[in-house]
Amino acid sequence: MDTRQTLLDHCSRHLGTLRNEGRYRDFTRLEKIAGRFPTYRWHGPGGQGPGGAREITVWSANDYLGMGTHPAVLEAAAGAVAAHGAGAGGTRNISGTSPLHAALEDELASWHGKPAALLFGSGYLANQAALSALLAALPGMEVFSDAMNHASMIDGMRRSPAKRHIWRHNDLGHLEELLRAADPAAPKVIAFESVYSMEGDVAPLHAICDLAEKYDAITYLDEVHAVGLYGPQGAGIAERDGAAARIDVIEGTLAKGVGVFGGYIAGAADLVDYVRSVAGGLIFTTALPPPTVAAALASIRHIRADAALRERLASRAAALKAALDAAGLPRLDSHSHIVPVPVPGADACRAVARRMLEEFSIYVTPINYPTVPRGTERLRLCATPFHDDAMIAELVRALGEVLRVAKAA
Amino acid sequence: MDTRQTLLDHCSRHLGTLRNEGRYRDFTRLEKIAGRFPTYRWHGPGGQGPGGAREITVWSANDYLGMGTHPAVLEAAAGAVAAHGAGAGGTRNISGTSPLHAALEDELASWHGKPAALLFGSGYLANQAALSALLAALPGMEVFSDAMNHASMIDGMRRSPAKRHIWRHNDLGHLEELLRAADPAAPKVIAFESVYSMEGDVAPLHAICDLAEKYDAITYLDEVHAVGLYGPQGAGIAERDGAAARIDVIEGTLAKGVGVFGGYIAGAADLVDYVRSVAGGLIFTTALPPPTVAAALASIRHIRADAALRERLASRAAALKAALDAAGLPRLDSHSHIVPVPVPGADACRAVARRMLEEFSIYVTPINYPTVPRGTERLRLCATPFHDDAMIAELVRALGEVLRVAKAA
Repeated sequence: MDTRQTLLDHCSRHLGTLRNEGRYRDFTRLEKIAGRFPTYRWHGPGGQGPGGAREITVWSANDYLGMGTHPAVLEAAAGAVAAHGAGAGGTRNISGTSPLHAALEDELASWHGKPAALLFGSGYLANQAALSALLAALPGMEVFSDAMNHASMIDGMRRSPAKRHIWRHNDLGHLEELLRAADPAAPKVIAFESVYSMEGDVAPLHAICDLAEKYDAITYLDEVHAVGLYGPQGAGIAERDGAAARIDVIEGTLAKGVGVFGGYIAGAADLVDYVRSVAGGLIFTTALPPPTVAAALASIRHIRADAALRERLASRAAALKAALDAAGLPRLDSHSHIVPVPVPGADACRAVARRMLEEFSIYVTPINYPTVPRGTERLRLCATPFHDDAMIAELVRALGEVLRVAKAA
Repeated sequence: MDTRQTLLDHCSRHLGTLRNEGRYRDFTRLEKIAGRFPTYRWHGPGGQGPGGAREITVWSANDYLGMGTHPAVLEAAAGAVAAHGAGAGGTRNISGTSPLHAALEDELASWHGKPAALLFGSGYLANQAALSALLAALPGMEVFSDAMNHASMIDGMRRSPAKRHIWRHNDLGHLEELLRAADPAAPKVIAFESVYSMEGDVAPLHAICDLAEKYDAITYLDEVHAVGLYGPQGAGIAERDGAAARIDVIEGTLAKGVGVFGGYIAGAADLVDYVRSVAGGLIFTTALPPPTVAAALASIRHIRADAALRERLASRAAALKAALDAAGLPRLDSHSHIVPVPVPGADACRAVARRMLEEFSIYVTPINYPTVPRGTERLRLCATPFHDDAMIAELVRALGEVLRVAKAA
């Protein structure tokens, strides 16, 4: 056997299958333009205009508040570049911890009303490291996981020895059934999200915490799609619902509402310090760059004070949903700024997104397996404070036309 | 049982054990100063001077070439902040791929002489994702792993179904023994590093590739501590030794020699595209921020052209070793810029590093378990082109004094 050739053949065959199923992903080349969010430049086939790119409106950014190009954030990032350079130059333990890192961790802890917080290179690493560490801490731990939990949470759970029970998405009857059936003596963790990224729905935090109390379980909450966006200071759904004190670990990201890069957890001091001391995904990775840390810190400080930004997000999301409904366009029952439009079939979904981009200069990401189950493919729209009425009207007009043509085909 | 309290008790107990064993890690707060590398400001107990911090010399940075604060790198980072903002705003598939990302991937592929390259959020994620994907690609795969391979490689291997054989560090007799004993029909992968981070020694690449050919194995090489530093264009030990064409996958980092943040793999087009299509650690993570990508691109372009920087690194490393030897100080037999000084015992090693910082304003990281085996604790010195003769003399003087006192105690 020629192992190299056999491996390459396997790779080519797999890529061919993805292409045949319409699941092969081309990464669309989009250039952010500071000060013009959500207008981007599209570089790519058919995108060539003057200067080699065409201006388009992006409806699928995870920079939910446009903070990635906010003037205060740019100023902080530029200042840190000039003062400290482009990289941390080490892991947190090997010369990579600056006063900026410590200040951001303090800010995150204060934001979530927790004694401590810990930065990671990404939300993915935070979930993976924190869940695998926590679920291995006590013998015989069992974890109860919402069926729609993010891949990084699943990854963290799988890496632990804990027995995993999966409850039907947001179905608290099912969660209680599983908790009741489990060994009363087993230490339990309930792991869930607040806003679900691909559905746009929101978990009933207090009801879940009631069950956690009743069955003596620890609560682990992923607020990745909520931080910055909900609550009086934007700390998330737990803050909005007044439930933060009932959550043991809050996990969040600096890459979506905050607009920058990186992830974190917040919780009790010893618990966070324990994760800090045992998590390979922290110990063996380079610290976040000083400009990233400075930008995130400036962003959160701005976000905490700017309630009007969140009000505008809420009103824009409501306007988007109303416009889709008025036009008779399909959408999932979203309770957040994320508004998924179902287009079943990977091929069909990709083709609709492609036409939106090429013919209407509107970028929407087609979401397919493995991010969502096969047959539930969708376009994932995210409202932001900067999507104005004209952009909503243009989106709805384009979507109506493309979906009508797709249906007729 | 009160699960929350039981968990917190466990965390406190574990932290207590770490403290008792001298393995509890305080992250020293060090501030990089653009333009003055390797001089940093130390913020912390005893560090307060004018402005709340004391200037110190860092001997343990992984910004091996000082590129993190190179003017060309700062200019590129600042330009990208101004033009595109502080964050990518999405995963690679969800609006997060910019022309900069594509350009950096092209540059990395060209640097390593491979058809394709793929960015990750970190070298940790790159190893984890690429190894776990490759080792699950063919049925019955077996992997042969150097005993000193990095935690992220071990993580990637463990996440795959592949049977794992561990060969004694850089012992090719042992590697061949294991290859010979394995099932001849099993598809094999040999996974190893070029420069080993905690030893400073270098793998014999051609000899390993000879064995790979003889036993029909694929080669996976981690060049994390070599990229930027070795070879005519700084592409690493594989370039220096003329062995790059014999390596199937080269994994590297943008966070050490390149001075910024992030990781990558380079290899055959379909193989890289396969990893891109199946790796959770890529699909479910936010793309690197545009300033990070622009900074890395500028850094690599500079590094490729600046052979004098590498010559200076080599001469500084030689000067450091000669000075340690002349002073009769212990060191491991390094063949690179990494020069470990053994100080066995976690407590002793930490105490020596603490005295170096407090009394001599020199920062060296104490390395203990789990990064190295217990009993082999060490100070990890890294020479850079910017450590001048006076800094070396001062280091050797301080180290001599502190180690003498430690021995006498």
